[in-house]
Amino acid sequence: MTSKNKLVFLPLGGAGEIGMNMYLYGYGLAGKERFILVDVGVTFPDMDGTPGVDLIMADPAYIEQRADRLDGIFITHAHEDHIGAIGLLYPRLKAPIYCRKFTGAVARAKMEERGQDPNLVEVVGPYPEQVTCGEMKVGFLPVSHSIPEASGLVIDTPAGRIVHTGDLKLDESPMVGEPFNAALFAELGKQGVHALVCDSTNVFSPEPGRSEATLPEPLGKMIKGASGMVVATTFASNIARLRTLAQAGVDAGRSVCVLGRSMQRMLGYAQSTGVLDNFPPTIPLEDIQDVPRDHLMLLVTGSQGERRAASGQLANGKYLGITLKEDDTFLFSSKTIPGNEKSVGRIINSFAMQGVNVIDDSAGIYHVSGHANRPDLERIHDLLKPNMLIPMHGEFRHLREHAELAESKGINAAVAANGTMLDITNKKPVAYDHVETGRVYLDGTRLIGAMDGVVLERIRMATRGMVSVSLVIEEKELLGVWAEPTGLPETNPIEDDLAEQIEAMVEQALMAANAKSLGNDDKVEELTERAVRKVCKDETGKKPVVKVLINRLEAA
Amino acid sequence: MTSKNKLVFLPLGGAGEIGMNMYLYGYGLAGKERFILVDVGVTFPDMDGTPGVDLIMADPAYIEQRADRLDGIFITHAHEDHIGAIGLLYPRLKAPIYCRKFTGAVARAKMEERGQDPNLVEVVGPYPEQVTCGEMKVGFLPVSHSIPEASGLVIDTPAGRIVHTGDLKLDESPMVGEPFNAALFAELGKQGVHALVCDSTNVFSPEPGRSEATLPEPLGKMIKGASGMVVATTFASNIARLRTLAQAGVDAGRSVCVLGRSMQRMLGYAQSTGVLDNFPPTIPLEDIQDVPRDHLMLLVTGSQGERRAASGQLANGKYLGITLKEDDTFLFSSKTIPGNEKSVGRIINSFAMQGVNVIDDSAGIYHVSGHANRPDLERIHDLLKPNMLIPMHGEFRHLREHAELAESKGINAAVAANGTMLDITNKKPVAYDHVETGRVYLDGTRLIGAMDGVVLERIRMATRGMVSVSLVIEEKELLGVWAEPTGLPETNPIEDDLAEQIEAMVEQALMAANAKSLGNDDKVEELTERAVRKVCKDETGKKPVVKVLINRLEAA
Repeated sequence: MTSKNKLVFLPLGGAGEIGMNMYLYGYGLAGKERFILVDVGVTFPDMDGTPGVDLIMADPAYIEQRADRLDGIFITHAHEDHIGAIGLLYPRLKAPIYCRKFTGAVARAKMEERGQDPNLVEVVGPYPEQVTCGEMKVGFLPVSHSIPEASGLVIDTPAGRIVHTGDLKLDESPMVGEPFNAALFAELGKQGVHALVCDSTNVFSPEPGRSEATLPEPLGKMIKGASGMVVATTFASNIARLRTLAQAGVDAGRSVCVLGRSMQRMLGYAQSTGVLDNFPPTIPLEDIQDVPRDHLMLLVTGSQGERRAASGQLANGKYLGITLKEDDTFLFSSKTIPGNEKSVGRIINSFAMQGVNVIDDSAGIYHVSGHANRPDLERIHDLLKPNMLIPMHGEFRHLREHAELAESKGINAAVAANGTMLDITNKKPVAYDHVETGRVYLDGTRLIGAMDGVVLERIRMATRGMVSVSLVIEEKELLGVWAEPTGLPETNPIEDDLAEQIEAMVEQALMAANAKSLGNDDKVEELTERAVRKVCKDETGKKPVVKVLINRLEAA
Repeated sequence: MTSKNKLVFLPLGGAGEIGMNMYLYGYGLAGKERFILVDVGVTFPDMDGTPGVDLIMADPAYIEQRADRLDGIFITHAHEDHIGAIGLLYPRLKAPIYCRKFTGAVARAKMEERGQDPNLVEVVGPYPEQVTCGEMKVGFLPVSHSIPEASGLVIDTPAGRIVHTGDLKLDESPMVGEPFNAALFAELGKQGVHALVCDSTNVFSPEPGRSEATLPEPLGKMIKGASGMVVATTFASNIARLRTLAQAGVDAGRSVCVLGRSMQRMLGYAQSTGVLDNFPPTIPLEDIQDVPRDHLMLLVTGSQGERRAASGQLANGKYLGITLKEDDTFLFSSKTIPGNEKSVGRIINSFAMQGVNVIDDSAGIYHVSGHANRPDLERIHDLLKPNMLIPMHGEFRHLREHAELAESKGINAAVAANGTMLDITNKKPVAYDHVETGRVYLDGTRLIGAMDGVVLERIRMATRGMVSVSLVIEEKELLGVWAEPTGLPETNPIEDDLAEQIEAMVEQALMAANAKSLGNDDKVEELTERAVRKVCKDETGKKPVVKVLINRLEAA
């Protein structure tokens, strides 16, 4: 047992993956630390691993069990991978929620959506304003990113200052919101930074990142040159991009209409919180029929090819009465997130069939990333001159590369994937504990553990098919067998039907069993499952999931 | 009814998608055409749309119904998307199979694997050798690609000559196999090409394609500079690349061992058919323990991140007793096919965790594509000077772009996606019929239609969960209800169990029904399903698939 206070860092989500960020900082005697939690994000499900799941978030079990020692939840910005689970997990954490104004508007909506009190969200001004949490003082450091009011955190602790970057890029003219403030970063560096916990997303991008301000020119030129209707999509929360796109449309003599609820909602938050005050004039949906196609521009949702978003519906032929035609232009002012290539491709092909010109970012001029590239990361290191660097917000390969980059410049670094508890009290980060972490799924209206087996059962049914078998047994006599295959091919219609073949084989197996076995549910299940799997394997090549429902009748 | 002979082109697969190539050419009076079929490929399933499916191929129904008029099946090369379904679909087509020698070795194995006679595959030499099929004469035109003996087809018909490119690139030093023969293409152009049916895969790549011969230098340099063991992966059928990699390893003073069955099999075919005679010496698996790590190089399968391939098993920690260590190097000399980004990423991250240096083609120097880029396509157009161009082997966006490219140079073009029958008799291609096409799935050991509903049922179970309900009814009295949810969250354990809640609700619904309803299976099913869906929706937010098994007892 040590009697010394420790400063610890524990990623619960977001380290070793991109998504569902959740980081814990603690200070105090071992077992008595007080904590703050940074970000409560989600990640999105897919058919491969999480069919039927609605949202995925980090399992907060570790801090839930210590919730009495949690002094605050800090949300760096309003992207779903940082804020998405706040309404769902708040009941398990019940600590004050702090964020900046625009983020607060989104956080309140998330709380309300899940039946929580939106007034629990407290809005904090930018650093040097700080919130005191136990022995820690936390301030929101304005950074530039692809959403308004993105913030790093300046966390002052008795063991020194931590700078937690959140997601950031070094954009000195971000069009909307605060520019990257190099002077402030340099000042923090001068004052001394103990630990830098830093975004790693773009560590493999060798060129310096480009500014949002590089976009108006090529976008303007492209839109001016377009002949039919122009429809553009981007991430709904990228307010600066929406403004750039809308302004380019207006400058090209087009009336601009914003469609898609999430985009309208985000613009609403940006306006009501004052981060956006110069959005060009737009027209409502009902007015667009009065505007000639070549004088119209739509801003729509669905940059990732989501079927139900505006882009997906337009690709399918119609959205709110609007149909695209030959020589209209559809612009993706966005990148395709890995894993979404197929759905975006589907939309591009549908538009190609309709004769719509699709322009994406393959030329690299209609979108800029919101994350710091490798040279930008080096600039951050140089400005802050931390004693140690802990990479976050990246898959393992990003974290490792970022740590090596720091070490090559003489900065101590440690790769801490989810669950690795680092002691960062002294000059060097030391892994001193490993905590079980995992994922929680929102499934319909319920939160379930990733390891509960529910989703695994679904994957098994999806890949193997399923057979339900109902048995009626009176005393120790089999009265009836009824089989219902689902998701299995019909056997050759000339031969017996698959269900009939299963029933015959189960009957045979159970008839051959002795009376004692028939009296035992486990034994009956085992014999039935084995018989079903054998028929199905022989007839279709697949061994399905089998559910046996035994109905025992009392003797008449 | 026209009494004139027509030359027709009908893609059954591969046009409007990349994969499962299957193209039909016909000549004759309408309704009496004689046909040849080009390629019988597969495409690969995914969890999104085809969970549990083993392989996907084009539905051959159109030509199956006219199999008596099918004079030959021509296979351009041995990639799975061109040859993969030959053994599975041959029984429905039963026409002579023609291909070149290396392709023939693969085709024979595919036939044997599915219980067909491998001797049905006939090997044909390169053009000017031709096979006569009715009024068509077909020759195999050597082209360069990423597999030995890839071929286009020269199809001479009474209406003129068709050049069907197959998959090709313009590589004049492909290292293994025949170089691109510009003189022969020019000669064909001089003789006159009526229709060019042309690969479109890389129409969006603006730079000329690079030769396989550009690889030995950077690969050699990289391998010479590596400190630990070097493991390289590429597509198993890319014999030239395997040779380049092995030679680079030997030149760097390393012993080379080829692991992974598909790679060994492909090398075997290449050697036995004489297309490869200068593969560097390799060592067998059992000798590798005698070689120091920094003198060893392995060639392994799994360039697409397949879990069961060598790469996937090494990433998981062990393959055939081999474990990678810190400072070993793993090289992807391959591109990641869209859709495989996540599985490849998983492997890269696992290696990163083990400290293995992963090198992929992001720098663009360790892999070259097997398809002609945009300037290469233009060169093909220029050499062959066809009357018309029909783009194939591409998603819709590729086909459209390729057609526009041809039209911009004064060549008639038509986009024909799967099912569009083109009349190509005259100067301009004319779409004159649309044929129902679709997909056939290999599911376990059975071929099922994509529209049979089997896979849709599986997707429903995977996304909604499943409830089996067994009912025992005597006369018109309900004796028992038994429910078994699968892939649904347990409800709160403090409350009633979900199964019990379902049973109670079903019982209530059926008790409330009148005796007449209870006597009617359809009615009982309907009432039960409705009750189950309601409980599940209320309790879990999901409406599951419901299967009702009704056991009716005779009155005692």
